[in-house]
Amino acid sequence: MRPHGVLETSLYVSDLDRAVAFYERVLGLRMISPGPFPGGRGAALQVGNGPSVLLLFVAEVTKRPSELPSHGTTGEGHVAFRIEPWEIPAWRARLRECGVEIEKEFGFGKNPPSIYFRDPDRNTLELAVKTIWDLSAE
Amino acid sequence: MRPHGVLETSLYVSDLDRAVAFYERVLGLRMISPGPFPGGRGAALQVGNGPSVLLLFVAEVTKRPSELPSHGTTGEGHVAFRIEPWEIPAWRARLRECGVEIEKEFGFGKNPPSIYFRDPDRNTLELAVKTIWDLSAE
Repeated sequence: MRPHGVLETSLYVSDLDRAVAFYERVLGLRMISPGPFPGGRGAALQVGNGPSVLLLFVAEVTKRPSELPSHGTTGEGHVAFRIEPWEIPAWRARLRECGVEIEKEFGFGKNPPSIYFRDPDRNTLELAVKTIWDLSAE
Repeated sequence: MRPHGVLETSLYVSDLDRAVAFYERVLGLRMISPGPFPGGRGAALQVGNGPSVLLLFVAEVTKRPSELPSHGTTGEGHVAFRIEPWEIPAWRARLRECGVEIEKEFGFGKNPPSIYFRDPDRNTLELAVKTIWDLSAE
């Protein structure tokens, strides 16, 4: 018995509106209800068309006692988003159009390069193809 | 244009061996190559049978300059793993057998409850059904 995938991935941000705008505008993510969460706690965005949700949280709120277990980090997190190899040129163009600096391109083995850049809170984001990992068959 | 899903979700841990053992034993995840990463940097585990990877990183290593962009957090992160509604009783039993305390059960709306517990670094883990989110169709 094991889970079927990661449903929610979290990043922590200081300015929620700024972060949501970045992920909507640059990455084309879609905010999903219920959201944004009450009390400035955070917001949820769907990634792709499957059960994959990016949560943006404000740590100073999520660290406080509430009806849900507390959490919250400081520092720079890391998330990789899955793209297809043929989409890489279009993503380079999109980032350039959005004024987002590509910090690094790095190819793992014989794979096409991962593209690294930062969100407004300096979380390290990566656009990557799934073949960088030795995944078991779906 | 948008990514097709989250490929890599990161949590930060202090003792890599302890963390890997926890995720293998309690959650049944499978370490995938290449891993563990050189220099005690971290390790990767596949979640389910799809392109969903949990990265466990040691922040004191990932914060150092290297050929990849630096990152690393302190504090308690949050990840939710996707399960099916009918698996909830078996997960309660598994956690009990593994000596992992359930910190909270919380039902969002009319959904079956999410099960919350902690990893050895006190990251907040959740076992949740995908219907807690208003996801667009796959």
